[in-house]
Amino acid sequence: MITYRYTGLCRLVVLLSLCILTFHVTAQSAERDIEALLTQQAEAWNTGDIDGFMQGYIQSDDLHFLGKGGLTAGWHATLERYKKGYPDQQTMGHLTFDLKEITKRTKDVYTVIGKFHLARQEMDDAEGFFLLVLQKIKGNWKIVADSTH
Amino acid sequence: MITYRYTGLCRLVVLLSLCILTFHVTAQSAERDIEALLTQQAEAWNTGDIDGFMQGYIQSDDLHFLGKGGLTAGWHATLERYKKGYPDQQTMGHLTFDLKEITKRTKDVYTVIGKFHLARQEMDDAEGFFLLVLQKIKGNWKIVADSTH
Repeated sequence: MITYRYTGLCRLVVLLSLCILTFHVTAQSAERDIEALLTQQAEAWNTGDIDGFMQGYIQSDDLHFLGKGGLTAGWHATLERYKKGYPDQQTMGHLTFDLKEITKRTKDVYTVIGKFHLARQEMDDAEGFFLLVLQKIKGNWKIVADSTH
Repeated sequence: MITYRYTGLCRLVVLLSLCILTFHVTAQSAERDIEALLTQQAEAWNTGDIDGFMQGYIQSDDLHFLGKGGLTAGWHATLERYKKGYPDQQTMGHLTFDLKEITKRTKDVYTVIGKFHLARQEMDDAEGFFLLVLQKIKGNWKIVADSTH
């Protein structure tokens, strides 16, 4: 009887440990995927490829970009905003992200807080903070809202 | 046989209509609840009650507030930030929100984009934009991340 209970307890502990492990691995994997997405964005930016950079954003009218000047709604309008604001590679400079917080809100929604820096030649550098909302859609993480200032 | 199929089709149409209706009513209800939360925040602010205003935020270390000066992490630090930045009712002024977009991301996560205005006497008014991330936790909507600039 005691052995049976002991075995049962062991199984429970193993099961719980597996659950916790799965939870951590999933969370770590989401964080890694999100970091990879932002790395890809920076890599695209640094070759002057704004269209590639824009692949990090959800291609939808529900994308919201909030900049210093206010709201830009929709993927196409956001693309145009970037192209207008950064007409050449000199203006785009070299982008680096410094990620401060990557936070799980639900299984499919994370928020990211960070700082960006644009190192530029013959122009002042630019830098600022951002809050991103990322959502897992059909297995892929995409930025659905971005507040950058 | 035809009657049976017809009745089956009718049932399916009724069921689908009910599903769509439920979906819309739920979404409308979430939007109304979120609007009510922000109205309560403004009401608290306008009586000089920062603690009341802070009830709109999740009381957790995972609350992230991104202002012009950078990141404030956690509910208590955010409360202190507001109390330091707005030491009296004259500085707090009269707060109004102009909500631009309330967007469902998942069942339990919405984003809100808006503009705030502080009408103040014997001081310059203040205004700016915000992106809020709201999450439904134990049946109540709470702001979990706020980027205001």
